[in-house]
Amino acid sequence: MTIRDLDTPCLLLDHRRLDANLQRMADRAAALGVSLRPHLKTAKSAHVAARVTDGNRLGITVSTLREAEYFADHGATDIVYAVGIAPARLDQAAALLARGVDLKILLDTVTAAEAVAAHGAPFQVLIEIDCGDHRGGVLPDNPLLLEIADTIDGAVAPALRGVLTHAGHAYRVATADAIATIAEEERVAAVRAAERLREASFPTDIISVGSTPTALFARSAAGLTEMRAGVYVFFDLDQQSRGVCRRDEIALSVLATVIGHNVDAGKLLLDAGGLALSKDTGATAFRPEVGYGEVCDVAGCQPLPGLFVTAVSQEHGHVQVPDAAVFDALPVGTKVRVLPNHACMTAAAYEEYFVVTDDAVVDRWSRVNGW
Amino acid sequence: MTIRDLDTPCLLLDHRRLDANLQRMADRAAALGVSLRPHLKTAKSAHVAARVTDGNRLGITVSTLREAEYFADHGATDIVYAVGIAPARLDQAAALLARGVDLKILLDTVTAAEAVAAHGAPFQVLIEIDCGDHRGGVLPDNPLLLEIADTIDGAVAPALRGVLTHAGHAYRVATADAIATIAEEERVAAVRAAERLREASFPTDIISVGSTPTALFARSAAGLTEMRAGVYVFFDLDQQSRGVCRRDEIALSVLATVIGHNVDAGKLLLDAGGLALSKDTGATAFRPEVGYGEVCDVAGCQPLPGLFVTAVSQEHGHVQVPDAAVFDALPVGTKVRVLPNHACMTAAAYEEYFVVTDDAVVDRWSRVNGW
Repeated sequence: MTIRDLDTPCLLLDHRRLDANLQRMADRAAALGVSLRPHLKTAKSAHVAARVTDGNRLGITVSTLREAEYFADHGATDIVYAVGIAPARLDQAAALLARGVDLKILLDTVTAAEAVAAHGAPFQVLIEIDCGDHRGGVLPDNPLLLEIADTIDGAVAPALRGVLTHAGHAYRVATADAIATIAEEERVAAVRAAERLREASFPTDIISVGSTPTALFARSAAGLTEMRAGVYVFFDLDQQSRGVCRRDEIALSVLATVIGHNVDAGKLLLDAGGLALSKDTGATAFRPEVGYGEVCDVAGCQPLPGLFVTAVSQEHGHVQVPDAAVFDALPVGTKVRVLPNHACMTAAAYEEYFVVTDDAVVDRWSRVNGW
Repeated sequence: MTIRDLDTPCLLLDHRRLDANLQRMADRAAALGVSLRPHLKTAKSAHVAARVTDGNRLGITVSTLREAEYFADHGATDIVYAVGIAPARLDQAAALLARGVDLKILLDTVTAAEAVAAHGAPFQVLIEIDCGDHRGGVLPDNPLLLEIADTIDGAVAPALRGVLTHAGHAYRVATADAIATIAEEERVAAVRAAERLREASFPTDIISVGSTPTALFARSAAGLTEMRAGVYVFFDLDQQSRGVCRRDEIALSVLATVIGHNVDAGKLLLDAGGLALSKDTGATAFRPEVGYGEVCDVAGCQPLPGLFVTAVSQEHGHVQVPDAAVFDALPVGTKVRVLPNHACMTAAAYEEYFVVTDDAVVDRWSRVNGW
C-alpha cells in the first residue's frame, strides 16, 4: 500500500525521521550524563514507546492516568505522572501501585499533600517546582516547599522521592543561546529546591527537569538525575520555528486531499481543517506565514513553495494561493501532506498512525486518547 | 449520581438548555416558513439527533462520511454531506446510496463533476455557491456554475438537485443588524444561482443556506427550500460574544478540577487544558477577556466573577486570579465548569456527553469522532 491509497485526512508518521529523532535525544542525554525519561504525551502509542524506551529500559512520563494505565498494560513499570494530581484521582493512582507499577505522582500544595497523606496508599511523591514558567509549582525558595515535604515525609504511607520542574517558557524564545539560558534556570531551580530539601533531611533521589528545547540546548545537567522530553519524537513547526529542529526532521504530517478550488477567492480547499490539524498556531510567533500548517508534496514531504493553511474551519483547510498556476498543479483530488504546528495537539485527533517509509505504508500504530 | 462524582475532565450537556435551544431554532424555521436541516457536525451523537430531528422527520447535514454512516446506522435516510467531495471518496458515498440513504454530495469544480459523472453511481449533487465567505463555492454569476451543472446534468447516472451555500462570514460580525445583512447576502446568492440554473433548464429543487447566526437573524427566507444550522444545539462563548445567544443558553461545559495553586504567579491550574478545551479562541474577537473559556460553578453553571482560562498547555488550564481570596474559595480538589469558546471543537475531544439536569447526571450519550 502507498500513501496515495489512504483515505484523508489521516496521520502519517515517517519511520526514518522518528528513529533519527530518538537517536538524537538519546545521544544528547548520554552526552549530558543524565537519564532520559521520555514524555509519551506526544506519541500516546505503545509502538512508539517500545522504540523510544529501547525495550522498557527507561522510565517514562505521562500526562494522564489513562496513559499510565495504557502503558502499564503494555509493560511499563516506572512511570511519572507529570501533572498535579487531583485528590479525587488518588484511588485510580493507588490501583496502579497495587498492580506493581512504580508510579510517581506530582503535587504543589499542602492541600494535595494532606490528601495523599490521609489516603493510606504508599504513594511515591514528587514536589513540583516553578522554574520561571509560572504554570504549576512552588518557587524553590518558597517556605511552602518544606511544609509540603513535611506533610508527605511525616505521614506513614507515602514516600517523598524528590522534585520535578518543566521550563515551558523555553517555548517563548527562538535562539540556542536563549534556550540554553532557560535550561540553566531550569537546572538551577531544581537543584536549589533539592538542596533545601536535603538540608532539611528530606529524601531527594529524583531531581527531574525537562522540555524538548532545554534538553537539546542545555549546557549542563550537573546535579540532575533525569530529563524529560516529549515532542522531539516527532518534532513540528513549533519546534522548527524556534530553531530546535530542521524541517526535514519533522516526522509527523497530515495527509489531506484538495476538495475545492475557489478561483475567484484565490484559494484552494483541503479536507483537513480545525479538527484534523488542531487550532494551535504556536509556530506563527516566529514564522507568521505558516498559519495552521505548511503544505508539502506526498512523495518526499517537501514544501510546496508559498502554500500554507491560512485559515481553518471544522473540516476545511483554506490555502491562499500565490498565483493561479497552483490550481493547475493541484487539481481537485490531489493529495498533499501538511506539517503541523504542534504535534501533540494534532495527533490527538486521530486513532492511529500510518507509518511510512518514502511513499510506502509499512505499518499502523494505535494511540490512546481522552481521559 | 451527581456532577461532583464524575472524573475530570469530562463533557457536560445541560438537558433543559439543549431542549430550549432546539425549540428556539424550530420556532425560527417555522416563522421563516422554511425547512430546518440540522447540521450534526456539532453534536455528532444519535441521541442528540433523535431530539433535534423529532423522530427522523427532518433531513440532516453532516461534515464527514463517517458521520453519514453513523447517522444512517441510527435511522437517518435524508443526508446532505456539506463538504466538497474528494473524488477518492465516491465509492464510500455510493455505498451509502446502495443501502438506501438519500445522500446529497457537494462540489464546486468541473474536475469533481467529471469524476461524479464518470463514476456510474446515481449521485445526488448540490453545487456549492460562495455567498461572500470565500471558503468553498463558485460565485453565483460565475460561468463555471453552468459548466458544472451541465457536466452533472448531461451524464446518465447522477442527478443535479440544486445549490448550497454557507455564510461563514456571519461569524465576523457581532450585531443583529450586521448578521441580518449577511443573511440576506446568503439568501440572495443562493436564489440568484438557482435562478441561473432554472433559466438554463437545470433542476433546482434544493436551495439550501445556513449558519446558526444567519438562521436566527435572517429577515426573509423567500426562495429558499431549507436552512442548515449546527452549533445552536449547544451554543458557546463564540456565539454569545456575537450576541447570538445568552450565556445561560450555553448547554455545553467542561467539568474540571483545580489541581494546583501557584500563589507566587497569582494563578490556579485546572486539569482541562488545550486538549480538553481546544485551542479555539473565537470568542476573544469580541470578548478578549474570555481566553480559552469562562469558569463557572458546578451547581448552577454561573460565572465565577473574573475567572477565565487565560492560557493552556496540553493538560493544564491556567486561570489568572484577580485576588488571592480565590485560592481560599477554590482549594485544590474543587470542581468547576468551563464554558467553551467553540462547542464543535471542544466536544470533538470526548467520547461521550454526561447529560445533566441541575447537578444530577441523568444520562450518558455517545459521539462519533474522527474520519
